[in-house]
Parts: sequence; C-alpha cells; structure tokens
Amino acid sequence: MTLPSEHLIASSRKASGQMADRDTPFIFNEWYVAAFSSEVGRELKPRTLLGKHVVLYRTLAGEAVALEDRCAHRSFPLSRSHLDGDTIVCGYHGFRYNEAGDLIDVPSQKACPKGIGVRRYRLVEKGPLLWIWLGDQALADEARLPHQPWIEAADWECSTGYFHHPGNYVSMHENLMDLTHLTFLHAATIGTPDYASAPFKLDLKEGHYKLIREVVPTTLSPVWGKTTGLDGCNTAARIVTSEFLSPGLHRVSVTFYDSALSPGQRSEYHIHTAHILTPETAGTMHYFIVHGRDFAQHDTQLGDFMHEQLFAAFNEDVEGLGALEQRLGDIDDGHYEISVASDAPAVATRIYLKKRATQERSPLHASPLAAKA
Amino acid sequence: MTLPSEHLIASSRKASGQMADRDTPFIFNEWYVAAFSSEVGRELKPRTLLGKHVVLYRTLAGEAVALEDRCAHRSFPLSRSHLDGDTIVCGYHGFRYNEAGDLIDVPSQKACPKGIGVRRYRLVEKGPLLWIWLGDQALADEARLPHQPWIEAADWECSTGYFHHPGNYVSMHENLMDLTHLTFLHAATIGTPDYASAPFKLDLKEGHYKLIREVVPTTLSPVWGKTTGLDGCNTAARIVTSEFLSPGLHRVSVTFYDSALSPGQRSEYHIHTAHILTPETAGTMHYFIVHGRDFAQHDTQLGDFMHEQLFAAFNEDVEGLGALEQRLGDIDDGHYEISVASDAPAVATRIYLKKRATQERSPLHASPLAAKA
Amino acid sequence: MTLPSEHLIASSRKASGQMADRDTPFIFNEWYVAAFSSEVGRELKPRTLLGKHVVLYRTLAGEAVALEDRCAHRSFPLSRSHLDGDTIVCGYHGFRYNEAGDLIDVPSQKACPKGIGVRRYRLVEKGPLLWIWLGDQALADEARLPHQPWIEAADWECSTGYFHHPGNYVSMHENLMDLTHLTFLHAATIGTPDYASAPFKLDLKEGHYKLIREVVPTTLSPVWGKTTGLDGCNTAARIVTSEFLSPGLHRVSVTFYDSALSPGQRSEYHIHTAHILTPETAGTMHYFIVHGRDFAQHDTQLGDFMHEQLFAAFNEDVEGLGALEQRLGDIDDGHYEISVASDAPAVATRIYLKKRATQERSPLHASPLAAKA
Repeated sequence: MTLPSEHLIASSRKASGQMADRDTPFIFNEWYVAAFSSEVGRELKPRTLLGKHVVLYRTLAGEAVALEDRCAHRSFPLSRSHLDGDTIVCGYHGFRYNEAGDLIDVPSQKACPKGIGVRRYRLVEKGPLLWIWLGDQALADEARLPHQPWIEAADWECSTGYFHHPGNYVSMHENLMDLTHLTFLHAATIGTPDYASAPFKLDLKEGHYKLIREVVPTTLSPVWGKTTGLDGCNTAARIVTSEFLSPGLHRVSVTFYDSALSPGQRSEYHIHTAHILTPETAGTMHYFIVHGRDFAQHDTQLGDFMHEQLFAAFNEDVEGLGALEQRLGDIDDGHYEISVASDAPAVATRIYLKKRATQERSPLHASPLAAKA
Repeated sequence: MTLPSEHLIASSRKASGQMADRDTPFIFNEWYVAAFSSEVGRELKPRTLLGKHVVLYRTLAGEAVALEDRCAHRSFPLSRSHLDGDTIVCGYHGFRYNEAGDLIDVPSQKACPKGIGVRRYRLVEKGPLLWIWLGDQALADEARLPHQPWIEAADWECSTGYFHHPGNYVSMHENLMDLTHLTFLHAATIGTPDYASAPFKLDLKEGHYKLIREVVPTTLSPVWGKTTGLDGCNTAARIVTSEFLSPGLHRVSVTFYDSALSPGQRSEYHIHTAHILTPETAGTMHYFIVHGRDFAQHDTQLGDFMHEQLFAAFNEDVEGLGALEQRLGDIDDGHYEISVASDAPAVATRIYLKKRATQERSPLHASPLAAKA
Repeated sequence: MTLPSEHLIASSRKASGQMADRDTPFIFNEWYVAAFSSEVGRELKPRTLLGKHVVLYRTLAGEAVALEDRCAHRSFPLSRSHLDGDTIVCGYHGFRYNEAGDLIDVPSQKACPKGIGVRRYRLVEKGPLLWIWLGDQALADEARLPHQPWIEAADWECSTGYFHHPGNYVSMHENLMDLTHLTFLHAATIGTPDYASAPFKLDLKEGHYKLIREVVPTTLSPVWGKTTGLDGCNTAARIVTSEFLSPGLHRVSVTFYDSALSPGQRSEYHIHTAHILTPETAGTMHYFIVHGRDFAQHDTQLGDFMHEQLFAAFNEDVEGLGALEQRLGDIDDGHYEISVASDAPAVATRIYLKKRATQERSPLHASPLAAKA
C-alpha cells in the first residue's frame, strides 16, 4: 500500500483550494439556459435556476417572461396561479402582476399599493434556447451571450435532449474538459481504447479553455462509423475540440475523415454538441443538450440512430457523475485529489469558476465583465 | 420591474419580526385536540403533538389516557407495546406502567424501583373531541377549553374529517383569518368572485380575533345554494364570521338567507366549521375539522353532498399551504412579506401567537393564563 | 403521575454520560466482519463499514482484497469500475490500481506518477467470514481476532443470515446483553414468560462481559422443543450464556436438557449464535448472524425449521430496535434513561465501548491493545 506522502497531500489540497467544487457559490452574472423555447407557453412553468425559484410563461404576443416565483404578499408560488391575458393572478389572494413583475391589483381593496413588485429576469430567445440572466440585471449584456449560430443554421441538422442531472455543474465541466474518460466511462458506447492516450494540444485563455485531441489513425465507434460511412476504416481520423465557453456552456466539435486520403480527396464530417449546464441546486443541474451535424441532414433514420447512441452515452455521464456526487457529498477530513497532466484544462476551468464566484461575492465587486459592459 | 424600496423592505421585515411564523416555538400551555374520540380505544395509538411523542388508549372503564410515548428505562416507544388491563407493558423489557404513568413493575427483579414514571398529559373528552394539555400540567384549566356546544347539540348535524397537513399551523391560522383567498384558492369550489372585495368589520380583542364579512347580495356556490334552496337566487346573503378562538381552534360561522325578504319572512340557514389545528412538527399539522349545520339535519344525501364539496375545498388549502410551506422552508436573506389592509386580523393573530410563545419561554414566565388560573 | 426526581434524573444522566450511545464515535482498531466470504468474488462489491467506503473483490488466485472505494484522482467510486486480472481499472479515467492499492497506470500519459495509491485494509478469511481491520494497519494483529472455531467444526452444523439493520450497533449490543427482553419483544417466537425473572450470574472482565441465565425448570418454545425432543417437557433446562467478545461480536450459547434426569443420564443439546455487528453509519449496521447446533446435524428439515423460527425472532429485534433508533434520534434536552439491576452487563459493555472510542481519539493515544501488540 503506497499512500501519497503528507507533503503531496498537503500540496494537492492547496491546489484544490483554488478550484471550484460543489461547495463553490454559483456565478450569477452570466447567461444560462432557463429552458428550451418549446417548454414555455401559456402555462405557468416553475423552474429552480441557480437556487432561485423562477416562473416562466409567454405573453399573448408570444414573448417569454421570467419572474420571481413568489408573491410579494405571503410568498405563495406564483407558478401555482393562473394567467389572465399577460398578467399573473396569484392563486392565493389574487394579487395581480403584469409581465414586468409590477403589482397592479389587490382584489380586497380599491387602491393598489404603489412601488411593489417581484423580480423580472432578462430572457433572450435564440432558436430553441431561452437564455436567462439571474444576476445583476444592469449587467445583462446580450453581446456576451455565447450564441451558437450553427444551432439554427440551414445546413445543420440538430436534435435536443434533457437530463435532470443529480450532480453539481462543476464536476460536469471537469468531465467535459477531460475526455480521456471516453475510453472508460463510455467504453460501451462512444469511446475507443486509443482515445485516452491520443496526443492533445491546449489553448487556455482566461474564460475560454480549449483542448484539441487528434485520434489519428483510429477506428470509429458505430455511432460515428455507421453514420459517416467510415465504419470499418482503420485509418479514420477523429479530431475533437472541447471548449469551455462560459459557466453555462461547453461545446464539443468533432471532425471525422479518412486520413489515408489527402485533404482534397476526402470528405469531412462535422458535429457539434452544446453541453448546456444550468445549476439547479448545489447537488443538481439542468443538463440541456443540442447535438448537430452537417451531413446526412435529411436522413431521419440516421439521425434517430445517432441520437439514441449519443444519449445512451450522455446517460453514462449522468449515472457516473451522480454516483461521484454522492461520494463527494460524503468526504471527510482526509480527502484529497491528485491531478495529472491531462487535467490541465479541467483545472484551469475550475480555477476560473472559483475566481468568478469569489469576485461576485467580493465587497469591492469590480467584475471584469461589469467593466466590459 | 418595480421592486419594493429598501425602506419598505426594512419596515416589512421589522413588522414580520413581531409575528409568529414557522420558526416560532409552539405554545404548550393551551388545549389542543389530540384525536377524535373515536380514534382512541383499546389499541395503543402513537401520535406526535407539538413535537412530543404521546401514546393514547382507553382504560377498561373507557377513560382516555395520554402518556409520554417513551419507556423511562431505554426510551422504547410504549406505543409498540401492549395493554394488560389498564396498564401498559413495555414491548422491550416488560416495564409496566399504570394509567397514571407510574412504573409499577420491572419483571427482572422483585422490587420495583420507586419514584419512576412517565409523563401523563391531562385529557378532556368533549363529544367527538379529545382535548389535551401538553404544557405545565398544573396550569391545565378545563374552564379555558374552547368548548363548542353546537358540536353535540341535538339540533345541529355534524360531520368530521382529518388531514395530515404538510404545513405549519401559523400559516393555517393566517389562511383562515383572511378569507379573501376563497375567490382564488377556492375558485373551483366554495369561492365566488365577489367574496374578496366584500366589506368587512373587525373585532380584535387580545386572543380573540373576529372578522365579519358580509357578501350581500351574492349568488351562492353549489355547496350552499343546492343545500339551502337558494341556488340561482341572486339576492342571497352570506354573512361570514371568522374567529380565532385559541392557538388550537378557529371557527367559521356562516348565515345564509335571501336578502330580498325581510327578517321576519326569510328562512336563515347556519353553519359552523371548527378548524382544529394541532401542530405535529414545525412543518406538519394535524388538521381536524368538524362541520355542522342547523338545517336539513336528517337529509343524509344532502349532508354527504355538502361534506364532499367542503372537503374538496379544504383539500385545496392543504395542497396550497403545503406548497407555500416548501417555499417558506427555502427562503433566503432577501425574503420579506408585504401586508395589506385585509391582513389586519391575520397579523393580529400572528403577533398574539408570537407573544404567547415568547412569554412561555421567558425565564420570568408569568403567563397571563397562569395568573388567571 | 410520578416523575423521577431532579436528583435522580441528574444522576442517571451522569451515568449515561459514561456509556456509549449512537453519538459515540466508532472504534476502528478492532476486527469486524466485512462480508460473508461467499459475498466476495470477481465482481467489485461496495460496502460502507464504520463510515468508510470500501470495495471488496478477489484476485484470480482467490485472495480477498479490500481497498478504499475512491480513486485518488477525482474520488470516483472504484466499485463502479472493472477488474482486469488482479487490478482495478477506474471506471472514470482508467487509473489502474494493483491489489496492494498502488497506482500503476494513468492511461493519458506514459509515466505513471510515483507514490500514489489508495488505502488497503487488512482482511482475514476464517471459514464463512471475512474479517477486516479498518483502523491503524500497523496494529492489525490476527491473534486478537475473535475466531469462532465451532463455525467450521465438523460436528457443528451452521446456518447464516444477514439484516441491514436500521439502528446503531451500541443499542444492539445492549439488547444482546439484556436477554430479559426475550419474554416481551420475542413473546411470539423464542421467549417464554419465566425468562425475564430467571436467576443470573455475571462475569464482567474488562472487554469480556458474560451473563449466565439459568431458566430451570422451564418449558421450551417450539424452536427448541421440537428440535431437541424436549417439547412438552416441563422440567426442561435452558442455560444461556451471553458474551460480549468484541465491539464486533457477541455470542449467545445455550445448553438444553431435561433437568429431571441426572447429568449422566440426560442428553445435552448445544447451540451457539454469533451476532456479528459491523457499524455502517451512526444509524445503520450490518447484522451478520451465524447460528450453529451440535445435534441433528444432518437433518435438513429440522435445520430449516430452526432457521426460520430464529430469524423471525431476530427480525423482531431489527424492527424493535429500528423503532427505538428513530426515537433516540429525536430526543430532547429532557431525555434520561433509568437503569435497573439487570442492566449491569449492558452498562458495563457500553462503558467499555465509550472508553475505547475515547482512547482512540486521545492525542496521547496509548491503546491498551497497541501496547499488547
């Protein structure tokens, strides 16, 4: 039994102390996806986002609205109420709020008290996604939204899915920044044995962490082989770019081709996966996924096969990280974590998340984002 | 988005600080209903009341007994034991207690230790209700029991029901002292649109808070219309008196008649509802209900219809306040509540409950009740 | 209502303060059963023992291995991984550990970091039992293992069972050291009315507490009567020895015979029951049971009957102590426990457990066991 030395444990703890983990507060001044656009309509939809209770609905004109899900009177959840046109009528005593969140009627009295209302959160609808800004509303800058034009592009075909994930969002970011786990956690689905040891390049800029892994030559697992026609080809290339784009978004982009052919001769196949992470509570997360391809766009059967295979793999992440979350919720004083070289992008991501969370809570809060805005 | 000013929030918080809420300790020196009489017999019945574990049973002579549900030896729940005549034989090591709670036998030894026993709580049986005094037994004064003679009166017909309510008793008192919620929470059952804005009178005496709301002229919802014969009458009167009678009892009394007829000509129909609130834990409550009428006493079908309609409405309270409880259990530092004019009786009730709870915990506890006793 | 005097309550609390209870830390420097041998094979088996997460498996050569169930990298449970020969390959990023717990491969890099590993716990296999030492591995002394040779003896026939017990191990030890509960908790199964008041002898040595209860003459409950042939005999003898052998083991040994016959004439029947208590968490316990007899060894039908009857009785302990655990988890400032004469061996046991737990946590920890070793 070789246990790490006291010195090694002490230094690993010091390093971990700089990194976000499940105990790190949320980062509010960011865009997160609140819901798929299709989830929000003329029913009042409650959702907990970054620990905040929010009610979502659409006005008669179709505008999506997000209000604090709590009547200013006696805290009744407004989501247990009903819409009258564009206004919410509280289901308890009938207090009425317009879509701006302003209190506009108290049924038991003629005069409505002035200057009362509930918080409205800025929403931006981009194709199938509804983005929300839960922090300081004055800082909500649409230009900073990590928009993904490919999701709506005519030459890309996308499919979507959702998991109510039983884990913190930090460990999911870490998972996505270290895809060596494909060989092991996804051995039965999308991983191949050579993935974990393939060479990689890093491009780590503050707040944008990129990892490029080139698995060449390789063979492709069925989800990619059968759909690109490279099935059985043992000179396939799989060029994977993993990118942390924001606390709420990680994108994986892959290019497949036959490396035995020259760039001019070969066909290239591209996919993107938007891993959209919206914390719900410290131990749970809304996991929205949009997956797109730029080939066989009209082949429904192929699309269904790819979706099924991929979501089986994502379910392995959900189950594995759910089990990890339970273990992390139960650590004792003796806990430590040892990092290795391939952890560099994940560690950079976690340090950034911790820094952002700390900055937001600083009394002299001068967020670099606020400065930019 | 119009949020309340900092000043308004600060003053609303100051006001709330004077009022009982789910974090306020229970008031022990009061009569509460422990059970319907019919629930207690020759089986040992466990029940948690104001956080205390109690075991209930009847002696062979039929007297109801309430003891601490914990053997003095190793804390085994006496309710998992058996009766031998009027004595409880602990189900673990056979320690035996008489109906006074005195330890009278230890099977493993000849001499029973002297001066050992478990707490006995004073019970008073009044018709279908078993009232208990869980506080200082020396203060238990039957004259202070909020007896409701109509429940047993020959010319009143009553029906009873019970909910294990997933909420604190304070929010239920508040609910009952502000019946403007009938128009909204009970829109589908007993409420009518004009209820919330009807004129009301208050009579707020220390410990007895009364609200009288006169809804005249009105139409009656089916539960009252069909049973009084005033269905379809658009000159109906509905005179509602809501009374906080004790921390464990709220009574709603209603008179219905046709306001187009003079007092001499018209028939009047009366109902009473005893809303009996016995806290179980901070977040749960035993909700006993006795509903009575002084008309159509022998019409079983009508009685069944009324019962069914009413308990559907009470179930709306249980579900709505259960949802509210979850929200109140999850408030953050930013929480506040804004009161309006119609909250006056509910606010008076909550201030009284807070004062009583504080007095009981005062080291110089000179309860006005104790003084009276 | 006779409540104990303030003085009596104060002295009982002082006494209880010396005794272990559900809040007492575990004693790690001891042998506990981790599993039945038959439970551990070539699958990775997770088990929580004394609050520690452990993964159990066997090498190809058949040796049982117990490792810390947590990858040193990112704390992934190794039990969610797979075996490759004798090594565990972490199911997340493929970190590989040999059966000593040493990290021997990191797939994403050529050189494996040196000096990393997870804790290995000493296991000793004795017949059907796998014993583990979870404390200081340097103190693990096989000579101190409370070996029970009868379990493997040719002339004894044994059967085994397991309960996931919803209670702390201390109250189970107390239960076993005070068998007067047979008359009450087991009235329907193995108890008889005369058991609780039968004379008993004590032999209380530090760390080995023995209680001998002689129930003579008696009648036997069916489980013993029907299997020994003493059914219906009203001069039966039941000589019971209850022994606390270690924090993880209590043994009950019984001799049955017909007391009307002289020692030379009569047949004697012996049974042993090993009550093997391995804490899981503060409120749960692994309850392994091995029951053996030295008669009718080859009578399968008799053995099945005895097993069924006995385990019905043990299930009464599990249910009863589970209910007790809930009550103990909910005690308030007014709590106390009154001990009587028959509690002497249980009290001695609890004082010993408390002393051991305290010693282990002492900064000048000079365990008497360590000294012996």
